[in-house]
Amino acid sequence: MKLEQIDTPAALIDIARMQKNIARMQGHMNTLGVAFRPHVKTTKCIDVVRAQIAAGARGITVSTLKEAEAFYAAGVDDILYAVSIAPSKLPRALALRRQGCNLKLVVDNPTAAAAIAAFGDQHGASFEVWIEVDTDGHRSGITPEHESLLDVGRILHENGMTVGGVMTHAGSSYELDTAEALAALAEQERAGCVRAAQRLREAGIACPEVSVGSTPTALAAAQLEGVTEVRAGVYVLFDLVMHNIGVCSLEDIALSVLATVIGHQADKGWAILDAGWMAMSRDRGTSNQAHDFGYGQPCLLNGTPLAGYVVSGANQEHGILSSADEGSRADSQDITQRFPIGMKLRILPNHACSTGAQFPEYHAVTPDGHSVQWMRFHGW
Amino acid sequence: MKLEQIDTPAALIDIARMQKNIARMQGHMNTLGVAFRPHVKTTKCIDVVRAQIAAGARGITVSTLKEAEAFYAAGVDDILYAVSIAPSKLPRALALRRQGCNLKLVVDNPTAAAAIAAFGDQHGASFEVWIEVDTDGHRSGITPEHESLLDVGRILHENGMTVGGVMTHAGSSYELDTAEALAALAEQERAGCVRAAQRLREAGIACPEVSVGSTPTALAAAQLEGVTEVRAGVYVLFDLVMHNIGVCSLEDIALSVLATVIGHQADKGWAILDAGWMAMSRDRGTSNQAHDFGYGQPCLLNGTPLAGYVVSGANQEHGILSSADEGSRADSQDITQRFPIGMKLRILPNHACSTGAQFPEYHAVTPDGHSVQWMRFHGW
Repeated sequence: MKLEQIDTPAALIDIARMQKNIARMQGHMNTLGVAFRPHVKTTKCIDVVRAQIAAGARGITVSTLKEAEAFYAAGVDDILYAVSIAPSKLPRALALRRQGCNLKLVVDNPTAAAAIAAFGDQHGASFEVWIEVDTDGHRSGITPEHESLLDVGRILHENGMTVGGVMTHAGSSYELDTAEALAALAEQERAGCVRAAQRLREAGIACPEVSVGSTPTALAAAQLEGVTEVRAGVYVLFDLVMHNIGVCSLEDIALSVLATVIGHQADKGWAILDAGWMAMSRDRGTSNQAHDFGYGQPCLLNGTPLAGYVVSGANQEHGILSSADEGSRADSQDITQRFPIGMKLRILPNHACSTGAQFPEYHAVTPDGHSVQWMRFHGW
Repeated sequence: MKLEQIDTPAALIDIARMQKNIARMQGHMNTLGVAFRPHVKTTKCIDVVRAQIAAGARGITVSTLKEAEAFYAAGVDDILYAVSIAPSKLPRALALRRQGCNLKLVVDNPTAAAAIAAFGDQHGASFEVWIEVDTDGHRSGITPEHESLLDVGRILHENGMTVGGVMTHAGSSYELDTAEALAALAEQERAGCVRAAQRLREAGIACPEVSVGSTPTALAAAQLEGVTEVRAGVYVLFDLVMHNIGVCSLEDIALSVLATVIGHQADKGWAILDAGWMAMSRDRGTSNQAHDFGYGQPCLLNGTPLAGYVVSGANQEHGILSSADEGSRADSQDITQRFPIGMKLRILPNHACSTGAQFPEYHAVTPDGHSVQWMRFHGW
């Protein structure tokens, strides 16, 4: 299908940009001498993941058991479920392992570790479990020097479970925007996770894997001594938040939302689009960054960004395109000429993970302007 | 299935609350002597819509052609597509009408009206079109006294299309929070839409229907003289935004997200949930209201709100439950006792339309605690 024939709103992936992003990250990992395990929560799309694996990725990271089930069914068997497991989800995890999936679980507390051990004992099963380490205080995990790190390790190890490794995610990297700060956080992430592995090994627990990552720290890391693998997700498509952090340009962003102009409020300098928050998502991740893109950056169909314009407001199925400068909107009465009814635009999103989730499928666009559908799934 | 057996996160609908909300709105419409056309964009779920129709609704409102197609296939034939149509969508609209669907389109500008007329002429088809009226300046539509109102009416009328009515949506009601202000806006919405119909009729265009509505103005309206029907969507489930506006209590909110405690950061007073923004949505609709509920209001499994706690932060699959009072979080080290690993909670959402869209299905819960799955669809 040609771009002009796609009904709007639609989520477009620029295949050439995506392949460039994949090659960039995998090349950097190869240079650093570590394995790369992409986080597939960004796209939940087997076509994208096949491209990541073809470029050299080793296994995948998932955020839900549904992703694990879907990607295992599609032929991927090395899967890290990177959210501390709720004990009630263990039967689903066991079913996957019994089908042959090399599924690794994550915990960060003794209660869940004991629940895994008890469930494993009850069902004659041994789970591989990785321990989540907190290296930046932004969310979950055990700090490297905390006593409960060894408690969790021992509960698993002494009850027949395999401590496969330690993993951390320096999600606070999303709050930074200089190369120096990102490099420093990447080193903090590396050092903390390596230290946690060292403590476990000194306590007689093998802990072979040391897994770190977020897109900004992965790209900023200068050396990863002691690390065995890196995880990152959003790098595959990038977005406006990543642009503001400084790890990609607007021209690297591979996801856009195709939209049509359906109306105007000329007195206010508004063009109304058929892409509202249901298409763009409610993610306003750039609102606290140096450059606030509203609900997205409009571009021409050929991808050229329309400097000075943003999607400044959104209802469920209506987006408001206007001057980025609030003060000059009322002077923009030429909006009806510049953006006539029926004109199609591409909107770069704040956050590729949340915008993608609004769509059942991507339209993957080749350099000659043709597209194919790549399905994605949602739910848990 | 019993509530305790549902895997988390899950979207729950309390059927008793939903039926009460439906009866309240339909009863109010009956008292006012107007028809009621629910906006099904909130749930995109045929089971919910059947309950609305059973209570007396006449036809439905949709926000996408996919909704129109799905609900027509499920047996609903009186459908208002309440977004100004992009000319490129006319072939899908025509296909629906040729199948027998009584689909009504909406426009608010001469260009789109001319495109409908030209397309209808080209295909030997007559569309029923309603003209969108702007009664509060918040989004789309033509103001009642604007000259282009009659231009649009004449383009349609003189080219064989049927001007079925005028419609308006006072979406600025979401910014109010007093009964007086809502009643005043309901009257403004009514009067503006009735005036637009009067101008069209005086110009010789029949315009039989006068359609108004948003959940807050529908509930606040004291009289609707000249109006033939009302539209509203979120009233069926309600949410925290509607609570803050003052049109429902917490006990009326029929949608909640079932979540499990999966970790803690005791030093910070955090319990970590397996419901992040992928489950709650990124909607922060209460952030600009008098009571900011963060990403949601936690409740016990029986529905009792846990006063003083909110979901204060969210990543994709992690929610942070903490004291609503930021200053007292670090003193809440009893968080691990109060919210132990594995505990299940129900989180009331900011916005039922956006939270529901994150799930492929609802679990509809009966008063005795059993549930059945009600499917919903997404995409365009």
